[in-house]
Amino acid sequence: MTGTAPAEGFAEGEGLVVVLAGGGALPAILVDALARAGRPRRVIAFRGFADRALRRQADAAIDLLDVSRALSLLDQWRPEAVVLAGAVTRPHPAAFFGALSALRNRAELRALFARGDDHLLRAVVGLLEDRGHRVVGAHAIAPELLVPAGTLGRHAPDHEALGAIETGFRCLADLSPYDIGQALVVLGARVTAIEGAEGTDRMLARVAGLSRGWFMRRRSPGGVLVKSAKAGQERRVDLPAVGPRTVTRAAAAGLSGIAIGAGQTLVVDREAMIAEADRRGLFLAAFDPAMIVPDTRQEPGP
Amino acid sequence: MTGTAPAEGFAEGEGLVVVLAGGGALPAILVDALARAGRPRRVIAFRGFADRALRRQADAAIDLLDVSRALSLLDQWRPEAVVLAGAVTRPHPAAFFGALSALRNRAELRALFARGDDHLLRAVVGLLEDRGHRVVGAHAIAPELLVPAGTLGRHAPDHEALGAIETGFRCLADLSPYDIGQALVVLGARVTAIEGAEGTDRMLARVAGLSRGWFMRRRSPGGVLVKSAKAGQERRVDLPAVGPRTVTRAAAAGLSGIAIGAGQTLVVDREAMIAEADRRGLFLAAFDPAMIVPDTRQEPGP
Repeated sequence: MTGTAPAEGFAEGEGLVVVLAGGGALPAILVDALARAGRPRRVIAFRGFADRALRRQADAAIDLLDVSRALSLLDQWRPEAVVLAGAVTRPHPAAFFGALSALRNRAELRALFARGDDHLLRAVVGLLEDRGHRVVGAHAIAPELLVPAGTLGRHAPDHEALGAIETGFRCLADLSPYDIGQALVVLGARVTAIEGAEGTDRMLARVAGLSRGWFMRRRSPGGVLVKSAKAGQERRVDLPAVGPRTVTRAAAAGLSGIAIGAGQTLVVDREAMIAEADRRGLFLAAFDPAMIVPDTRQEPGP
Repeated sequence: MTGTAPAEGFAEGEGLVVVLAGGGALPAILVDALARAGRPRRVIAFRGFADRALRRQADAAIDLLDVSRALSLLDQWRPEAVVLAGAVTRPHPAAFFGALSALRNRAELRALFARGDDHLLRAVVGLLEDRGHRVVGAHAIAPELLVPAGTLGRHAPDHEALGAIETGFRCLADLSPYDIGQALVVLGARVTAIEGAEGTDRMLARVAGLSRGWFMRRRSPGGVLVKSAKAGQERRVDLPAVGPRTVTRAAAAGLSGIAIGAGQTLVVDREAMIAEADRRGLFLAAFDPAMIVPDTRQEPGP
């Protein structure tokens, strides 16, 4: 985890940190980490994404694409750092109506969306940096979200699963030029599903649907979910994340375990995730992708 | 279409041709082509896959994995050539129960399935060849199923679609080492969905689900289905196919057209497919993948 070293202790600083909060558990975890460190913090919650509990304690709730309002709040607050956390992809239509009223250049917006989430998020980071803000990743606020290479929990991948894991990391690397594929499922030597815009949960549901009535087994030997950042990914806004629910869904899909990129995948609610994996008999293991597929090493930024 | 030249006129020969018939319209089309050419023919229909109409006129109906019965029929009939046609992937559980009773080596079977359809089908071809049979592809029986490069129908891809098509063929080429991805959907510059074990129809339904409520448009500019054989694919059993229903589903997914590999993708019921594309305003175009992604040229075998 050498790559996370510069980020460690960031939460212990003194300047204001603003959390731009999308969906899922991650934003609240970051707010907690900042609170534990006694760090001044403010939260801007995206309507239609941020959890209700977080929205209630947020300093402002705005529409996802109400960029002008977000920028004016940040100009006013002058934080030391801004962190974008939580899912905002595939936005609820309601989010867009707000955006359309705030943003005049529909053509530009459409072009950004057509080019994919990575480009869109990079554009947001670029916009914030142009205004003089420092954007940091969730792993800078809470470095404990990243895990070093090794096995978490009681179970370990067997020989068959290790083969599937290698295939999975190789395929993710080959997909890195395309704005698709933070995750995929390998059954044996076969890549069975590649995550598209639908997200990991729906991909796993798809695999569960396929394996129902499939052959003679409930649990696929060597059936593995592989999830990791891609080479060249904007790591400050879109590191892939796993959590307890990922284990539940992987188990429902008949998989034998989950492989993530060491220092490349956020593990949200680690203790609950390990407990769920132990309980359901799934392995949970982190690998350094560069050990499997050379020339894919990447260091997480600050 | 130089690669199909050796195959042309095959249907005009005199020896018996046996069609091993899976699902879909293709087996019946081959039987018709053989009938029109006055070629002696027999049909072995796979239970649970072959269309009812074809099953009724079949000389035998067997379980998918009842290999011993298929082989004994072929030994008895001594055909000049055997053609495997129609979908048999993701088999109905019923098909497997038959297989389990006929095949003793479950471990071997499981290993084959784990390695994916390509390997399974290659193993079937190898088995038939070991017994002295000649296996030919559907395009050898009906070369008119393959199309040369060019536009079919009234509509042509625009500049945006051409960019999406290039991205799609490149991504398919990068996926060729993996047993996944005969088809994918590109929206703008973004690969949005890659076909897994679920098949093209379900992938398109997935894209339709994503685009419902998505942004402000019904039709995605530059939204394209790209479907083509992969490098190294066993072309005698698993050439990808498109037909009128593919157009209907692509239209429902909001796509602007379909791009296939020239000489690499079977076009089933071409006239109806072109009529459907014209009616719905979709383009239908064939490209030589080698013109887009060098070093992917492949010739269809006999």
